[in-house]
Amino acid sequence: MQILAVNAGSSSLKFQMYEMPAEKVIISGVFERIGIGSSFYTIKLNGNKVKKEKEFGNHDEAVAVLIQELFDNNVVKSLDEIVGIGHRVVHGASKYADSVVITDEVLSDIEDFISLAPLHNPANIMGIKAFKKLVPDAIQVAVFDTAFHQTMSEESYLYPVPYSWYEQYGVRKYGFHGTSHKYLTIRMSQILNKKEFKLITCHLGNGGSISAVKDGQCIDTSMGFTPNAGIMMGTRSGDIDATIIPYVMEKTNKSLDDIINDLNKNSGYLGISSISSDSRDIENGIADGNEKCILAQKMYIKKIVEYIAKYYVLLGGADAICFSAGIGENSFKTRKDIIDSLACLGIKLDEEANQVRGEEKLITTLDSVIPCYIVPTDEELMIARDTLKFVK
Amino acid sequence: MQILAVNAGSSSLKFQMYEMPAEKVIISGVFERIGIGSSFYTIKLNGNKVKKEKEFGNHDEAVAVLIQELFDNNVVKSLDEIVGIGHRVVHGASKYADSVVITDEVLSDIEDFISLAPLHNPANIMGIKAFKKLVPDAIQVAVFDTAFHQTMSEESYLYPVPYSWYEQYGVRKYGFHGTSHKYLTIRMSQILNKKEFKLITCHLGNGGSISAVKDGQCIDTSMGFTPNAGIMMGTRSGDIDATIIPYVMEKTNKSLDDIINDLNKNSGYLGISSISSDSRDIENGIADGNEKCILAQKMYIKKIVEYIAKYYVLLGGADAICFSAGIGENSFKTRKDIIDSLACLGIKLDEEANQVRGEEKLITTLDSVIPCYIVPTDEELMIARDTLKFVK
Repeated sequence: MQILAVNAGSSSLKFQMYEMPAEKVIISGVFERIGIGSSFYTIKLNGNKVKKEKEFGNHDEAVAVLIQELFDNNVVKSLDEIVGIGHRVVHGASKYADSVVITDEVLSDIEDFISLAPLHNPANIMGIKAFKKLVPDAIQVAVFDTAFHQTMSEESYLYPVPYSWYEQYGVRKYGFHGTSHKYLTIRMSQILNKKEFKLITCHLGNGGSISAVKDGQCIDTSMGFTPNAGIMMGTRSGDIDATIIPYVMEKTNKSLDDIINDLNKNSGYLGISSISSDSRDIENGIADGNEKCILAQKMYIKKIVEYIAKYYVLLGGADAICFSAGIGENSFKTRKDIIDSLACLGIKLDEEANQVRGEEKLITTLDSVIPCYIVPTDEELMIARDTLKFVK
Repeated sequence: MQILAVNAGSSSLKFQMYEMPAEKVIISGVFERIGIGSSFYTIKLNGNKVKKEKEFGNHDEAVAVLIQELFDNNVVKSLDEIVGIGHRVVHGASKYADSVVITDEVLSDIEDFISLAPLHNPANIMGIKAFKKLVPDAIQVAVFDTAFHQTMSEESYLYPVPYSWYEQYGVRKYGFHGTSHKYLTIRMSQILNKKEFKLITCHLGNGGSISAVKDGQCIDTSMGFTPNAGIMMGTRSGDIDATIIPYVMEKTNKSLDDIINDLNKNSGYLGISSISSDSRDIENGIADGNEKCILAQKMYIKKIVEYIAKYYVLLGGADAICFSAGIGENSFKTRKDIIDSLACLGIKLDEEANQVRGEEKLITTLDSVIPCYIVPTDEELMIARDTLKFVK
């Protein structure tokens, strides 16, 4: 049977179609610049990648083109073959600790959570509605970025702010990238061949987060009420002293919105280096002796190491640490810098093993007290798997 | 010779007069409600404490009363006997890494730093000016709360925000309670009889901060650009996701100032427990089974443990940890909760030794990998010592 994994952004729509339960990707693609002009899409099929320019004014039109491509490429003969469609939904608030079939009530909840994820949930909803309209018989499933973190305890997810902010407005740590952290947890359980173990998962991409996982359940994570919190990222600040905000507003005469935008779009690697948000550019800068890039990398590493240290003690030790996502899977240097900083925990890098990109691999020596692994993440596969549960 | 240590708040003025170099307190006192009506003061001398009601409209009037008390109590016969006056000054920005004689230039700098410490530096300046006017021949010394932390490296004191915020407006981590952390470092050096050692100092009072100290120099600290950052405190939130601010403003229709006030005055122990900012009340609540108090304590401990964990790894291990200030010196429970949470680092509490208040003492077992101590802090003595350096 065929299952679609969908990730709808405000002007984009990514999809992968799986043959399940074989977990084989049949076709995938991405629609870009939806509704903002000069739109186009790319389709990957049988190792070939094709880019086509076509105007689509909204997600419905993009999904119609997607379906036409499925027919044209003989991927499906009838829409009935698509039994399930899994949607990435960023925010499930405190209500959704697992994936769920999208009923009217669920859709209404996702709409209610818009104030918690104003940039993401509206886009996710557009994707859901487009597929509901055009593939009405498929089971639609919501897979929440926040779900995996719902096992955190009160003392982990609450902030030391007036308690009424939690009760009345839902101010708490939600955490994000949950689908990735869950995938890493499942994979590490297979690698270690254990169900009960203490794990630190490092999802290090342009956005990044770190989780502490005990016996398969998340007990803490670095992102917070929003995805701006936690470690330093490509363009996001991560944790700062919140009272910097009014000071900088006064000094710059910028609005609160402008400052929040700066913390999300002009901070992190980009803010410190002034060059780029991309860790590859930062590494090139370091090779050229650029002092701001050297500084940005030191700050990036320091924040990650701090979270690993915190979670090591919170877990009462760790059985393994794993690195994933764009930087975690591909940057030798970042992994080396992190692991070298963890020497006092008895962790030792295997320099040679570390010289790989995007490959599942043990990268510490056999006498390292805690083994560290690269584990390429696969959020789309997790979405397809969760969707499969409901169509069987 | 006699030296005064002064701590001037916006409506208060504390002082201790020392016989130096014997470091003996001769007289001490506090003036309260200066300039806001119903003012009074208390004087401690020879073990007696006297409270007197008297109106003083400003710091000059309070200092005049202070001097009259010194004469009336035969502590001095002439103002010439007061050779030095050391002032606690909260903010020395990046310029002052040590105490300094207050020249016109220094006073002008302290005025320039008002935008960094709008609540504190103006009060400190009022105290300095009052003593300059009334005891003009004494050497006046500024002892900065921020000075000890000036040894932090760039990657420790910078935030991952636009670099221009640092260059143009001085946005960086400054750290506070430096005089206390310095005192603890000196005392621990004596206790351990070492100059080169890795230390974590925990100043836990109504405000609180934790520092990582290597070979006598601060390498990181938990407070940040302002004293609102770091661990959870009596009424302060400590670290939160900064982007909570615009969300709560929108939900509550409160102003930015109101929210910042909430984060400073209505958060921490008080915000979670809804009962009190005082750890003694929280502990009584816990004894009564109050769930919010139990939660508040768990959150408080978690944040402290996280900082200790971070600094343990940053230092590459630790030779000692010490606890100080109101809670650190007096709360058996908080020390026990913290140390029990550090078990995976090989730290073991000596339950019996821990049953003390305000006493310098080793509180871990002899086989604890890292020894932990109670060290009562003494910021006034540090101020007197630093002042002495300039009058000799």
